[in-house]
Amino acid sequence: MFQFTAGFPSSSQRRSKCACSRRVIAWRPLGQPKRATLRSGRSGVLGIHATAVVPSLPAEFASLDENSDPVEVIDAALRVFGSDCAIAFSGAEDVLLVEYASQTKRPFRVFALDTGRLHPETYRFFDRVERHYEIRIEYCFPDATEVEKLVRNKGLFSFYTDGHQECCGVRKVQPLRKQLATLRAWITGQRRDQSPGTRAAIPVAQVDPTFAGLEGDGMLVKFNPLANMSSKQVWDTIRILEVPYNELHERGYISIGCEPCTRAVLPGQHEREGRWWWEDQTKKECGLHAGNISGSGSSSKP
Amino acid sequence: MFQFTAGFPSSSQRRSKCACSRRVIAWRPLGQPKRATLRSGRSGVLGIHATAVVPSLPAEFASLDENSDPVEVIDAALRVFGSDCAIAFSGAEDVLLVEYASQTKRPFRVFALDTGRLHPETYRFFDRVERHYEIRIEYCFPDATEVEKLVRNKGLFSFYTDGHQECCGVRKVQPLRKQLATLRAWITGQRRDQSPGTRAAIPVAQVDPTFAGLEGDGMLVKFNPLANMSSKQVWDTIRILEVPYNELHERGYISIGCEPCTRAVLPGQHEREGRWWWEDQTKKECGLHAGNISGSGSSSKP
Amino acid sequence: MFQFTAGFPSSSQRRSKCACSRRVIAWRPLGQPKRATLRSGRSGVLGIHATAVVPSLPAEFASLDENSDPVEVIDAALRVFGSDCAIAFSGAEDVLLVEYASQTKRPFRVFALDTGRLHPETYRFFDRVERHYEIRIEYCFPDATEVEKLVRNKGLFSFYTDGHQECCGVRKVQPLRKQLATLRAWITGQRRDQSPGTRAAIPVAQVDPTFAGLEGDGMLVKFNPLANMSSKQVWDTIRILEVPYNELHERGYISIGCEPCTRAVLPGQHEREGRWWWEDQTKKECGLHAGNISGSGSSSKP
Amino acid sequence: MFQFTAGFPSSSQRRSKCACSRRVIAWRPLGQPKRATLRSGRSGVLGIHATAVVPSLPAEFASLDENSDPVEVIDAALRVFGSDCAIAFSGAEDVLLVEYASQTKRPFRVFALDTGRLHPETYRFFDRVERHYEIRIEYCFPDATEVEKLVRNKGLFSFYTDGHQECCGVRKVQPLRKQLATLRAWITGQRRDQSPGTRAAIPVAQVDPTFAGLEGDGMLVKFNPLANMSSKQVWDTIRILEVPYNELHERGYISIGCEPCTRAVLPGQHEREGRWWWEDQTKKECGLHAGNISGSGSSSKP
Repeated sequence: MFQFTAGFPSSSQRRSKCACSRRVIAWRPLGQPKRATLRSGRSGVLGIHATAVVPSLPAEFASLDENSDPVEVIDAALRVFGSDCAIAFSGAEDVLLVEYASQTKRPFRVFALDTGRLHPETYRFFDRVERHYEIRIEYCFPDATEVEKLVRNKGLFSFYTDGHQECCGVRKVQPLRKQLATLRAWITGQRRDQSPGTRAAIPVAQVDPTFAGLEGDGMLVKFNPLANMSSKQVWDTIRILEVPYNELHERGYISIGCEPCTRAVLPGQHEREGRWWWEDQTKKECGLHAGNISGSGSSSKP
Repeated sequence: MFQFTAGFPSSSQRRSKCACSRRVIAWRPLGQPKRATLRSGRSGVLGIHATAVVPSLPAEFASLDENSDPVEVIDAALRVFGSDCAIAFSGAEDVLLVEYASQTKRPFRVFALDTGRLHPETYRFFDRVERHYEIRIEYCFPDATEVEKLVRNKGLFSFYTDGHQECCGVRKVQPLRKQLATLRAWITGQRRDQSPGTRAAIPVAQVDPTFAGLEGDGMLVKFNPLANMSSKQVWDTIRILEVPYNELHERGYISIGCEPCTRAVLPGQHEREGRWWWEDQTKKECGLHAGNISGSGSSSKP
Repeated sequence: MFQFTAGFPSSSQRRSKCACSRRVIAWRPLGQPKRATLRSGRSGVLGIHATAVVPSLPAEFASLDENSDPVEVIDAALRVFGSDCAIAFSGAEDVLLVEYASQTKRPFRVFALDTGRLHPETYRFFDRVERHYEIRIEYCFPDATEVEKLVRNKGLFSFYTDGHQECCGVRKVQPLRKQLATLRAWITGQRRDQSPGTRAAIPVAQVDPTFAGLEGDGMLVKFNPLANMSSKQVWDTIRILEVPYNELHERGYISIGCEPCTRAVLPGQHEREGRWWWEDQTKKECGLHAGNISGSGSSSKP
Repeated sequence: MFQFTAGFPSSSQRRSKCACSRRVIAWRPLGQPKRATLRSGRSGVLGIHATAVVPSLPAEFASLDENSDPVEVIDAALRVFGSDCAIAFSGAEDVLLVEYASQTKRPFRVFALDTGRLHPETYRFFDRVERHYEIRIEYCFPDATEVEKLVRNKGLFSFYTDGHQECCGVRKVQPLRKQLATLRAWITGQRRDQSPGTRAAIPVAQVDPTFAGLEGDGMLVKFNPLANMSSKQVWDTIRILEVPYNELHERGYISIGCEPCTRAVLPGQHEREGRWWWEDQTKKECGLHAGNISGSGSSSKP
């Protein structure tokens, strides 16, 4: 079991990917120098963890649970990880994460995966969010060679026949992986009520089951501050706080991803039916949160 | 209290509007001649009802309650009233009434209020319903003189400043009243979960609290077979039975009325917020179901 | 040949429809009393016209020709006919008529045929025009009985199979006839370049070949001030003068009529291909300007 | 002056970018082996061209002029350059190039610049063209690092304030340059009537004034087979031949580029007013055809 300790790895250790460094406790509080000396106690810590199998959350977040207020979760994340933490903003109702982050009065980072196939409305929404919160979003763009290889061979809509995983892999997962490799923690808008099957047990804070961060495998913390909010609660909040929202939400869209893989839903229809609707309902993760699908977590690793 | 009896009023009696005729029991079973002789027992009946104040449902419908299946309700309505009964179809999810009526295998009538301001999509949907169920919808159109008087004086959007009642009065209520005056019963798609305040206590069958039918005041029966279905149940049914639906429902619209007075709602927003959104939430009836609003029933009578 | 004279028929004569009154010269200048005495010279006038077969324009408009400026034409019309003249506004680029009328600084009337099937955008545009020019548009609405008879028998889209004439007859021609029967002149936005075949020889001013006005057959004057402007000239003017326009024009629509009978055209496609596209290109008049179709003028008369 | 000769550079020479190789005549007829021996006469050829300043078209295309049929032009291009030539397809009415190429019965290549900001309709249109003509389009995608640098610093809509050149440079010009560097000739849909100012003198065939191809500067041939067709002729042809077209053309769009930089135009408005409308009308080239703007040809070179 991993725990937060007083000892810190050196910067080079944190970035190295040797098995050793992955076991070093990396949860460095904000305000402390990055290159903190790591003197005593380290071997002891290592000793404690030598037999560790399942990584666990740093102790600082042990108190976060399903009753935690989202602002409290985000505040804790930003307090501990600072600029090594960023919000993953999809351009949908997870804009509430940005709103809550702004309420903490702490500086915060936001990134977004621009797959090259988003709705024009989503690009405009990103722009509105940037202006409203006076932030710059760190857009992550897919690799030209990878995209060209896919679309020159299979066309622009291969996902309808081959499934969305290949395209998501190129346009979302790889850019996300690249971005997460620069972070120690990220904050997502996942909620338990979003997905039939795949998101029913999302914790408010977890060690990322899929991706490695700056510190290597098993060291990236993933916060899901909205995990226990219902869609209705999120939307009531957006309306009450007059948070800007994607105009697609005025046209029947609930969950919003890439344009060809998103559609409006009918009244009463589950939002997830608006995503990859030609595929099995219980496997609707694009790889970003692949760990939610039992047994699939490792498959999307390199 | 009104009850069904073996005696029938003459046709002329049924159409007269004297207080007397209103106390005659008019629930004539289908298949019996309209001009049934009314011989014995009538005065006795009148005697019974001499002190009646609140009209009540014919006994045949006494067994209908919140547990009644919608098809059962419609079947009873059609069995008793036949072609003196018609479905009021708004062009929204109350298409389920048409589906259920078709399941009874009985002939049935459908009318719709074409206000002259419906969405193009709604007109197309009416057409689709006509073809799908092989029916003709009886469209009711507003009076030219009345419409011209309103719009030449106040323009085409007076409802935004003066409230929707005046326009609804001309375009919906008067044509409805004219149509209902030819009927002994009508079937609506009202549901308890539709309206915050106004529709919370809708019964499955009732004496229409607002409109007179062919038989005069207090003699028109109003069936609300969907009263106890939730929006979600209605929509699950529409999808499972592959009932045709208004394409506006694919663009965020739930409740659908006239184009300028209807809008899509946001995820999680109550459907009634998509209607007359510039007005007080608890008074959103257009006059068709004015009786739902406490104390307003009489105001929309002539 | 009809000519303007100093003698005026009495009001009752003007409104009577006897053959006699139709030969009385009715072009009464504005500012003169309506009930002008008609003393001498009348029989002489009648004598002159006793053998007239083809009605002709009053002399005051003799100088109007294809070189006349549209504002000049409208000014002449308003000067002579005043409130017995009105602009027929379709909700399309003939808004330029309203602009030009406003430039005359004379009071002017505008009417519009609200068929009950216009685009929502067109209703909004009417409203915008009312506000922009501070006028009230006289909307003409079709007769409920006629509309119901058509749509209850044939559905809402009979024009796609039976041709548009029947529906136009009910929703446009009859309301127009009713409106024109109160006028001595009307002003339309017809242009020569609009229609392949039917509008190639439209004069700037003419005796209406189809409709009767207040004075009876052959006495209604029809002005077409834009007859000799090209579509490009009209649109350049609209843009330069910043005249409000129907937002449908931003979505590929050129000619705009009823919603189900109008569509956007492709680049370079003739505007008339956006109307009644399922019908023969050379017969695209809705009855309003039926006189344009050779030999059809009389057929649309009562 | 450059001319076609019987001598061919070796493959390696053709790809080298030394000044020398640029003077070697590279117009190799199709069907001849790529690795043609280059023995005698070469120095003579070089001698001829030693003083060349302005590159000129190979003699084979000397007969192409404004009267040349577009199919003839494309046929000549494909005959001479084969798979070293490709059509640049923008997703608009230049689909006619693809149609004409298919009429030559020769194999042909098509590439398209997917800037990551195209309309969803354009992506769908690409797919339709691939299916209709049974081809694979070679999509060119912008470099992730370049895109991220731009949008992380300036946001997603910097072109509205800074001008479109920077964004076009990253998303269109660089990917185009990369693609052209693999070609000896390209075929574009430029027309003289497209641009007020910038495209008035486009020849049917020219040495590309802006880009280098496989053979180096001054050796890339650019064909503009539609140069002398009017917009109306192009569209009449598309309709008559039932060539698939971008559905945006049904919504008022004429010229189509990136979504945020394209808009529908009003009736009669020049198509170029639908592009970069916030900028000076006479400088509307994105860099692809920068050579059209006098004096700007060299500026967009590396």
